[in-house]
Amino acid sequence: MNETVEIPIERMKQVFSRVLLKHEFEESRASAIADIFTANSVDGVYSHGVNRFASFIKLVEKGFVIPNNYPVKVHGLQALEQWDGRLGPGVLNAVKATDRAIELAKANGLGLVALANTNHWMRGGYYGWRAAKEGFVFIGWTNTIANMPAWGAIDARLGNNPLVIAVPFNDQAIVLDMAASQFSYGALEMAAMKGTELPVFGGFNKKGELTTAPSEVLDSMRTLPIGYWKGAGLSLLLDILSAVLSAGLSTHEITARKVEYGISQVFIAVDLQQLTNYKSIETCINGIIADYKTSIAEDAREIVFPGERVLKDRQRNLSNGIPVVKKVWQEIESLL
Amino acid sequence: MNETVEIPIERMKQVFSRVLLKHEFEESRASAIADIFTANSVDGVYSHGVNRFASFIKLVEKGFVIPNNYPVKVHGLQALEQWDGRLGPGVLNAVKATDRAIELAKANGLGLVALANTNHWMRGGYYGWRAAKEGFVFIGWTNTIANMPAWGAIDARLGNNPLVIAVPFNDQAIVLDMAASQFSYGALEMAAMKGTELPVFGGFNKKGELTTAPSEVLDSMRTLPIGYWKGAGLSLLLDILSAVLSAGLSTHEITARKVEYGISQVFIAVDLQQLTNYKSIETCINGIIADYKTSIAEDAREIVFPGERVLKDRQRNLSNGIPVVKKVWQEIESLL
Repeated sequence: MNETVEIPIERMKQVFSRVLLKHEFEESRASAIADIFTANSVDGVYSHGVNRFASFIKLVEKGFVIPNNYPVKVHGLQALEQWDGRLGPGVLNAVKATDRAIELAKANGLGLVALANTNHWMRGGYYGWRAAKEGFVFIGWTNTIANMPAWGAIDARLGNNPLVIAVPFNDQAIVLDMAASQFSYGALEMAAMKGTELPVFGGFNKKGELTTAPSEVLDSMRTLPIGYWKGAGLSLLLDILSAVLSAGLSTHEITARKVEYGISQVFIAVDLQQLTNYKSIETCINGIIADYKTSIAEDAREIVFPGERVLKDRQRNLSNGIPVVKKVWQEIESLL
Repeated sequence: MNETVEIPIERMKQVFSRVLLKHEFEESRASAIADIFTANSVDGVYSHGVNRFASFIKLVEKGFVIPNNYPVKVHGLQALEQWDGRLGPGVLNAVKATDRAIELAKANGLGLVALANTNHWMRGGYYGWRAAKEGFVFIGWTNTIANMPAWGAIDARLGNNPLVIAVPFNDQAIVLDMAASQFSYGALEMAAMKGTELPVFGGFNKKGELTTAPSEVLDSMRTLPIGYWKGAGLSLLLDILSAVLSAGLSTHEITARKVEYGISQVFIAVDLQQLTNYKSIETCINGIIADYKTSIAEDAREIVFPGERVLKDRQRNLSNGIPVVKKVWQEIESLL
């Protein structure tokens, strides 16, 4: 049922690129989008890479993503800018916003770009890695369509609004990429398909009881916010900030459209190189991670930091090719 | 055992102020600190108000908090500044850093102040309220001494590093003030004292099982990060940012000192008034909260937003005086 095939990286890029060209993306845009979907897959985040490519194309076909619309600046202050994504591809808008936040940070120490009318950025961690590899701190988040109830509520009125925080770490990065729900719908579906229990509560069943059965959560649509009331509160505030800072839509307005498009995002960068302690930052972070790694583990497990697993997946996939569920790859090839 | 007395607000301020003057705080500083400890108590956050005053004085007596040390700017970029708190009182350093972030935001759209060598800010929400009531978005966090294990670990090497996000809401504010642990030690101790179970898992017992018994968590010292691995990751990143941006100490360095002092904090403000959509921001936030409030509640409970409960406590305490555990107040009066 879950038979996988290994797709060489260049092959994946080529296929994505050709499909995008067929959908009238400009050549440089097709190539850039293909690179990002492939990179997310190389890093092991298949749910926001290869597994999501076909549904991205559907959004293009339906007119929710406009291939060659470039984002434009609406309003600029010294270190803060408000941009309109004009419903262009979310990944390209997010790259532009990240790079612009970096430019603002170079000029001002830190920079913030708020982006309205954009589309799903796929894997938020991508932008964290991008900025951190350039030597910048990255803090960013997005709102989403409603998919999580408020604490004490039954119906979903909050998004799971992923938050990304990234810092450089030697020649790599430490990247937290965290939705406000305990498990993504992708993770719930995968566990349900495999018939495995969730390692911790993932939401409520229809009787309102906390459950580790993924199918029960999928039935009730009552996902669990991280930290219960805390994650729900975090999600609410991130949505307010997304909408207010970008002059864009909030979760309830996106939800009213039924389809998730035209969302709002925030990108913050800090230029470490200009800090007074720049030379000691690498030592500082290495000291923190060294201490963290001396934690006494519960069993034989290794204590990992956010983003550490990515490095292993990346290395494996760069050598062996990217493992893709056969059906998923067949669907993509059918788009050629 | 928990007999309480109601202390009039002016009386509380006077007592705090007199105790501080006795400890050689300059008059204006004594008055400002007394105001903040009282305001936190008025807002119902007793754990970081009246209940913490006596232990704050002990830190002063032991020389960890230096009464009349003012913070100084170490390094300034356009929109970002690094300050040294010089081990002054955490609440005054944090007020200064908040106000300076607001000034930077007025000049640049947003501003960031990173503060090293400071002390406990008591209730982080205070600074969120302060900035939001002036019309600014506030994002701030602090590191702490180690008090929470990494995910999969037994020993505490992470702080619970509270994160505050605040936005103006009509003439009040929406203020998220959230530690990365599911419950604070104060909350665990209170529940243990009352003999009540926690409403959700609060940590692990000594056998490594998740538990709702507060005394078991206090015994094991294994508090639960919000969202398990997610809250642990969030805490790690917030500590890295605190230390890196401020050129100050990280959690493991603070922990090596045995006593929590000389910590690191970050304060970010955004000037809403200069945004292109300033006039519609109030409508936007009201729309989000109105939708949020239409959530279908599980039982008769009201769906509240972060900080909403504060308004009720504030109103009650402003009329009736502040309820204080008798023993707590007696200890404070003994300091006079």
